[in-house]
Amino acid sequence: MPKGYAGRILHVDLTNGKLEIEQPSEAFYRKYMGGSAMGTYYALRDIPKGADPLGPENALILTLGPVTGLPISGNSRVTATARSPLTDTIGDSQAGGFWPAECKAAGFDGIVIKGKSPKPVYLWLHDGEAELRDAAHLWGKVTGEAEAQIRAEVNEPKAEVLQIGPAGEKLVRFACLINMCTRANGRTGMGAVMGSKNLKAVAVRGHQRPEAADPDKLRELARWGVENVEVRMGAMRKYGTANTVGGNQSAGGLPTRNFTSGSFDEYEKISGPTMLNTILKERDTCFGCAIRCKRVVEIKDGPFQVDPLYGGPEYETLASLGSYCGVSDLAAVSLGNQICNMYGMDTISAGGTVAWAMECYEKGALTKADTGGIDLRFGNAAAMVQMLEWMGKREGFGDLLAEGSARAATEIGKGTEKYLVTCHKQEFPAHMPRVKRTLGLIYAVNPFGADHMSHEHDPNYEESYEGHRNGLSSLGLADPQPPRSLNAEKVRFALTTQWAYSCLDTVNVCDFVWGPTWQLYSMNQLVELIRAATGWSVSLYELIKLGERRLNMLRAYNAREGIDRKDDVPPQRIFEPLEGGLSDSWAMDRAELAQAFDTYYEMAGWDVATGTPGRAKLAELGVEWVADIVGL
Amino acid sequence: MPKGYAGRILHVDLTNGKLEIEQPSEAFYRKYMGGSAMGTYYALRDIPKGADPLGPENALILTLGPVTGLPISGNSRVTATARSPLTDTIGDSQAGGFWPAECKAAGFDGIVIKGKSPKPVYLWLHDGEAELRDAAHLWGKVTGEAEAQIRAEVNEPKAEVLQIGPAGEKLVRFACLINMCTRANGRTGMGAVMGSKNLKAVAVRGHQRPEAADPDKLRELARWGVENVEVRMGAMRKYGTANTVGGNQSAGGLPTRNFTSGSFDEYEKISGPTMLNTILKERDTCFGCAIRCKRVVEIKDGPFQVDPLYGGPEYETLASLGSYCGVSDLAAVSLGNQICNMYGMDTISAGGTVAWAMECYEKGALTKADTGGIDLRFGNAAAMVQMLEWMGKREGFGDLLAEGSARAATEIGKGTEKYLVTCHKQEFPAHMPRVKRTLGLIYAVNPFGADHMSHEHDPNYEESYEGHRNGLSSLGLADPQPPRSLNAEKVRFALTTQWAYSCLDTVNVCDFVWGPTWQLYSMNQLVELIRAATGWSVSLYELIKLGERRLNMLRAYNAREGIDRKDDVPPQRIFEPLEGGLSDSWAMDRAELAQAFDTYYEMAGWDVATGTPGRAKLAELGVEWVADIVGL
Repeated sequence: MPKGYAGRILHVDLTNGKLEIEQPSEAFYRKYMGGSAMGTYYALRDIPKGADPLGPENALILTLGPVTGLPISGNSRVTATARSPLTDTIGDSQAGGFWPAECKAAGFDGIVIKGKSPKPVYLWLHDGEAELRDAAHLWGKVTGEAEAQIRAEVNEPKAEVLQIGPAGEKLVRFACLINMCTRANGRTGMGAVMGSKNLKAVAVRGHQRPEAADPDKLRELARWGVENVEVRMGAMRKYGTANTVGGNQSAGGLPTRNFTSGSFDEYEKISGPTMLNTILKERDTCFGCAIRCKRVVEIKDGPFQVDPLYGGPEYETLASLGSYCGVSDLAAVSLGNQICNMYGMDTISAGGTVAWAMECYEKGALTKADTGGIDLRFGNAAAMVQMLEWMGKREGFGDLLAEGSARAATEIGKGTEKYLVTCHKQEFPAHMPRVKRTLGLIYAVNPFGADHMSHEHDPNYEESYEGHRNGLSSLGLADPQPPRSLNAEKVRFALTTQWAYSCLDTVNVCDFVWGPTWQLYSMNQLVELIRAATGWSVSLYELIKLGERRLNMLRAYNAREGIDRKDDVPPQRIFEPLEGGLSDSWAMDRAELAQAFDTYYEMAGWDVATGTPGRAKLAELGVEWVADIVGL
Repeated sequence: MPKGYAGRILHVDLTNGKLEIEQPSEAFYRKYMGGSAMGTYYALRDIPKGADPLGPENALILTLGPVTGLPISGNSRVTATARSPLTDTIGDSQAGGFWPAECKAAGFDGIVIKGKSPKPVYLWLHDGEAELRDAAHLWGKVTGEAEAQIRAEVNEPKAEVLQIGPAGEKLVRFACLINMCTRANGRTGMGAVMGSKNLKAVAVRGHQRPEAADPDKLRELARWGVENVEVRMGAMRKYGTANTVGGNQSAGGLPTRNFTSGSFDEYEKISGPTMLNTILKERDTCFGCAIRCKRVVEIKDGPFQVDPLYGGPEYETLASLGSYCGVSDLAAVSLGNQICNMYGMDTISAGGTVAWAMECYEKGALTKADTGGIDLRFGNAAAMVQMLEWMGKREGFGDLLAEGSARAATEIGKGTEKYLVTCHKQEFPAHMPRVKRTLGLIYAVNPFGADHMSHEHDPNYEESYEGHRNGLSSLGLADPQPPRSLNAEKVRFALTTQWAYSCLDTVNVCDFVWGPTWQLYSMNQLVELIRAATGWSVSLYELIKLGERRLNMLRAYNAREGIDRKDDVPPQRIFEPLEGGLSDSWAMDRAELAQAFDTYYEMAGWDVATGTPGRAKLAELGVEWVADIVGL
């Protein structure tokens, strides 16, 4: 393991304020490594069957990884794991920033938080010490204010604060965790779990930076990254993830007006170049990263003014608050982003929920009587902003929307379910199954609902595939397939890259920096990274099996809750034709997708009827104990 | 691919004498690589369902690999693939020597031989050219004579000759292919297949040595091997595989008197040190190998005189002709080895068959009336030698034994089946399931019958496990298990290392030199080797999946012939207690083994009822076409 690698897991029982430190064995670290697999290990072990996601019996687990805090791009990631109040499945979400590296330097690899504090508290970790502090005076504060106040209180201007905003306090089901007021563990409502525990924040500060087992090799890898970042990641550096707006529009896959279209006429107004040439104030970075993909925007005039403290919108946000809602006003989208970061809400689910409500409104299922007088039609920028603010405060119509679109549809009825664009009750991210067909499968089978960072999206044209082939070959994936097919080879592509991304979220590195295709570093280089960091003779085989192990553990968690194949259901929308643009009339084929599901479960080694791993499969992954816990 | 890498497959139709050269794509090479996977590809494609193993419709496929002929240890291997006349399953066997490297230099990566020549012929490959030559005058000659004559005829003293002896000509069911008169593709009766085609030999000579894509990296790896060979492989260098006699005796696992005991009182007389100190003439090597594990012995006096032309006995032979038969006369064993090499017979099946007959004789099921007057009791060295010679010539009682023990037992009846020590009709190699329990599983499930080089045997004491752990960790196998257990973790160990060895036999490197545990080089170094040789960015994930692909293709081949789980049956003997020594009274447990079978098939992703991969599993391995061919 890295020198100075903490090897320490903090267990917090908020009900009685008890803090305990566990030091797992090196074998444990090698088997579960960190991130999502480690989080799921504790979720399986410590969350009882049938736990209420918002009850004290749920556990919120924050985990780092074996390379967190080392001086190389993409190292600083934190995974949050808990049973999700949005999806009811296991929840899982990653974020970057400086918090993860700082938490490692403070002496902790992971934090397992159980129970419920009788009053609001925050956790303060510093140089190996851990303490709970009163947070009554912070409750209700937006993230920027709370962060400043905590730093002042602990007298550490460099303390990093991972926290919830008012949305998490009020149990908005897609509330996020946020650090630096800009980096969100966005998906699956981890902020509501933290809020349900009366925990406002986890502040960290430490001075023990980890040191790699092989510092020379690590330096060599880091140098390679710096030397290659411009040629491999130039567009990401220049435009950030916003660059993807144009790419998806060109492919007919920019989700528009609640996924009724893949083409947004006004896409240029919310594109990377427009942001660069108008409101961009500066580029921001996570700890140690050479890419600097994060955006900081500032708007001082007009109806939608934006504070650079809250960063700037990512691609997902430009789409979810922009094209999903038919909104092309970049300032409004940026302010919407700020509201989400202030209140602590996932921009994807927030925007997806607003877009769904807009369609309901346009189709007459909602009226101004429902919306508090707001004319909630597509393209109404101010309405979008208003809805976000009401959601964050759970005020007015926002209180219902704060439940997420799936629960809101159940509440409203009137056929509004047919406008849902969700899997496992989680709103789709900004990538279109009708354009990249494996998404139609993976959004449904992914154990925590629709997620865009759980596998490699289908390469949607031959040139990009060629560029990816070298990396994919190391996974045995080198045969190009016809566009928009969902044959067995495409299912294999989806499953294998799902294992790869599952590994990335367990090693806990940034999926933009490390990965099988377009990323700065390849999967083979990831092997080198972990060898350099830990001194272990890891192989890519070991790492992909680690990813498969984590994926199976997640499915097993769900199986214990009775959640299985019957719940892996894509929404009606993906079978409807898209309107306009390149993708005009494209729709997914039900029979082809049904076959793909069968193939997927069988390829995964799961029972085809239930989509659940059996005891032998879990044993094949070295986790037979999971079968005992889950009762398989 | 390596510069000068031939990329050429020779297709031979012996019925009409037609020779064709195929040049497969690089993608084909990367998917099937060489060796056994490539051989099985052609077997599935070119051998029709229901083929008679000894009929012209069978194909005999000889394949090299991506590193064959490169200047590094363990590179020079040839795999033979055909439907087996011994096991009725797909047959598969590897050999080393100089032939493989020379075949590569002659311009061929593989040879697919179909049909049946109207008269005896041999194939002569030289510098990219291929021709069939008359072999009528060679038919009936022992290997040493035929080799000398062929070299003279082609006027190439450095030509290498892979051939059959009289046993192959006479369709002895365990006849082997042999090159250098000492290197045998021993198992599964590939020599009988070649004999059935009237093909005496494949002689090769060429001058185009392959060059690695990264010669510096290859040199570095080769140098590492030379520098580490003494410390890692010292005992193998000094004693050859004969060193294993003492090791297995100490562990209670030296198969003795037809596997009724694991302890041979006189083991020292046939041990590595005894050979070294008495009859060893010199050490021999395969092309480019630093280990020099091969033995050459010479005996000029006494009743059992031995010609160094035929090398010396390996561990397997010392056991099969020695302890299996209760014979401790090293000279007799060495002469038996010579007879097998002269006539071209697998020493394991030959010795196993004699040992079985000896038990039948001792137990009264055979008498001198059956054996041609020979007193065929355990320990009768001269009788063992006589039986081998008769088998090779199919004379007298040897004609029946030439069918192998399983068919002979069926012929004889009288309860002799209960003394069989076979799986899929193939005699056990010299490793004991009752001592290393995963062998009880793998001998039965291996697609071509009992084989000792298809997985990593259970480490049988804690120290050796510790020494192996670093290599096993790269396969995710690091948890020691209780000795003689066959729990799910042990099954996982067996299956995962089976994939690893399957990869080794497909890359076609020597399992003594490259492998997951005790070998000179690790699996991670194998990745480096293939990268250096080919320039491909291979990963261990890709290689292990390659091994899994090959194993699934073999099982699929058998499924087409109706051979499946019902045929994966271990013999009664492994459930009987061993007699004497450390392993006294050890027996395998039927219930535990039955559970291990279920676990194994499920872990492998196969139908548990049939032990056969389905379409989705084959597609997951990138070979969905196999499902079409096999009808799955």
